[in-house]
Amino acid sequence: MFDAVIPVKLPTHPYQIVIQGGILGQLGSQMATLGLGGKILLVSNPAIAKLYGETVLSGLTAAGFQVQICCIPAGERYKTLKSVSQIYDAALAAGLERSSVIVALGGGVIGDMAGFAAATWLRGIPFVQVPTSLLAMVDASIGGKTGVNHPQGKNLIGAFHQPSLVWMDPLVLKTLPTRELRSALAEVIKYGVIQAPDIVEFLEGIPDLSHYRHYSPPDLHHLLVRSAECKAWVVQQDEKEGGLRAILNYGHTLGHALESVTHYRRYRHGEAVGLGMIAAGQIGVNLGWWGDTEQQRQTQLLAKAGLPTRWPSDVSLADLLRAMQADKKIKQGKVQFILPRKLGQVEITQQVTEADVSQALAALV
Amino acid sequence: MFDAVIPVKLPTHPYQIVIQGGILGQLGSQMATLGLGGKILLVSNPAIAKLYGETVLSGLTAAGFQVQICCIPAGERYKTLKSVSQIYDAALAAGLERSSVIVALGGGVIGDMAGFAAATWLRGIPFVQVPTSLLAMVDASIGGKTGVNHPQGKNLIGAFHQPSLVWMDPLVLKTLPTRELRSALAEVIKYGVIQAPDIVEFLEGIPDLSHYRHYSPPDLHHLLVRSAECKAWVVQQDEKEGGLRAILNYGHTLGHALESVTHYRRYRHGEAVGLGMIAAGQIGVNLGWWGDTEQQRQTQLLAKAGLPTRWPSDVSLADLLRAMQADKKIKQGKVQFILPRKLGQVEITQQVTEADVSQALAALV
Repeated sequence: MFDAVIPVKLPTHPYQIVIQGGILGQLGSQMATLGLGGKILLVSNPAIAKLYGETVLSGLTAAGFQVQICCIPAGERYKTLKSVSQIYDAALAAGLERSSVIVALGGGVIGDMAGFAAATWLRGIPFVQVPTSLLAMVDASIGGKTGVNHPQGKNLIGAFHQPSLVWMDPLVLKTLPTRELRSALAEVIKYGVIQAPDIVEFLEGIPDLSHYRHYSPPDLHHLLVRSAECKAWVVQQDEKEGGLRAILNYGHTLGHALESVTHYRRYRHGEAVGLGMIAAGQIGVNLGWWGDTEQQRQTQLLAKAGLPTRWPSDVSLADLLRAMQADKKIKQGKVQFILPRKLGQVEITQQVTEADVSQALAALV
Repeated sequence: MFDAVIPVKLPTHPYQIVIQGGILGQLGSQMATLGLGGKILLVSNPAIAKLYGETVLSGLTAAGFQVQICCIPAGERYKTLKSVSQIYDAALAAGLERSSVIVALGGGVIGDMAGFAAATWLRGIPFVQVPTSLLAMVDASIGGKTGVNHPQGKNLIGAFHQPSLVWMDPLVLKTLPTRELRSALAEVIKYGVIQAPDIVEFLEGIPDLSHYRHYSPPDLHHLLVRSAECKAWVVQQDEKEGGLRAILNYGHTLGHALESVTHYRRYRHGEAVGLGMIAAGQIGVNLGWWGDTEQQRQTQLLAKAGLPTRWPSDVSLADLLRAMQADKKIKQGKVQFILPRKLGQVEITQQVTEADVSQALAALV
């Protein structure tokens, strides 16, 4: 019926990821088919609501839902408990019941916040992800991680709460700022390195990755499908990050630290993750865990995606190490790294020393 | 090994309720036995911390845990997102990791907030309930309901998050204010009416229920054990309140509304619930669902517990009905009532009309 339907086979909360151009307006009928509830709070940001709100809204209304809209300003700095409080207020005003649904229409920030509000309103109500950024499509909208930032750390406050449906319309990516598109490609390349060499090869076969116009619809569709399959597979193995799911944090240990010490202003998330991947790869090279050739392929792909590949020279190592210590991926005081072994295979380790980090970064400036 | 150990047999999160006089100081060794983590944030309120903090703290420290304390002022009005934010700040300062534990030492307010913080810090870390009020012992500490109030409604924000251990020392009840003790008895009587006639008979056999001094240690122990067993049984059948668990809301539909319209100042929770039970019973009598005799037994027990049994004459019916509509127990706009059928058996219904409520309350003023 749809171009692609990827199941996320979780024992207690199975759901589907649907991918097809032009399906925004059909969300309402699909939600009705799934038996999802009567009242809906549509959470979005002003820019996205202006572009796509009407299409989604009219489809929901036509399917018989009562819809209220709640807009939160765009940007990571609004991913706070205060914004979630605004969603709570809107939920109360909309009279949401336990069977009502929160629909997140937007990028990762909107999805994370709306999902957290859904996880915690009346101790949990259903929610639907309608990701409008490439990053949200390939990563954030799948897997049930929801939450907000603490003033002193990203995503420290949150909950696992799986969506009831993930609804992706690749056509909306044509309005995505180029820097956002590029940034998200870091996560796509990440899937290639950690588990799917075919993604690396596929991306290597596309002459230019840096603009939306360079992607044919079938290529873009393929990348969305493969990314969703990769993410869904990992989440199925380890929903709550007891172990394996941590491989998705490849590039994130140093990436998060870099975002933190540059106050989330200098780098987009994917840019920092891309740099984190290069750093993790370099540590791997230095430890003899993986080869120069693979490291170069990774760096070249990130470069072709228009992402930065040089580590900034003005960021202090001490600040980075401190930021890593404050990260939530700490285990008994030890920082956890994901290092590549070969294309499609990584290893979770707590053996990386400060000297290893320092040596790798020095080579990348 | 312990006087009473009641298992809560949940498939993914089984845990035990341990009840024994004088075991506060042994919490640390038991947590070590259970393999619970190295860092602990002990959340309490100033009065309880002063009375029992040292005993718990020294036991935890002796067992090798690193403990930080976070005190939140006592009282329902502090059960807010803002207080939870303070716990988050303390969690960050204490360096809590995913394997660290939040220990709630206090009544229901502390347990609900500390539990919600544990549910949402790093997307969920373990927590332990050490209830110090009778209400928390017989009800709030068991079953994983955590959360805070929204300015316009009680417990609207929350999560299901089961504790890893519930640790009850009945001796702490000797410092509990008498009004709190009485208030909690409403929930004990509730268990009798909804599922355990033996509790009603047992309470009828105790000449005076209104003061701690009237309870022999074995009687108090018996009531704690039977209440915990009742609550555990219901939670096992229906952890997330998909259906059956709603029977625990007996007396709460009107009870919550009464608390709300009197701004949580005039009645303690149990006092309002007791009045709600009498009202639900009266609706049952009027509908011919249960008998005058049972209704009288219920009223007499509540009176013997020193609880109010007359519905206030100055509370407007319209306000109550409005408050019920704002309650989270609403389903498709319909208010849900739990009505008694006979001692030990209730029925969940959405058939109660405003006229039924009005008629019942008029008889109780």
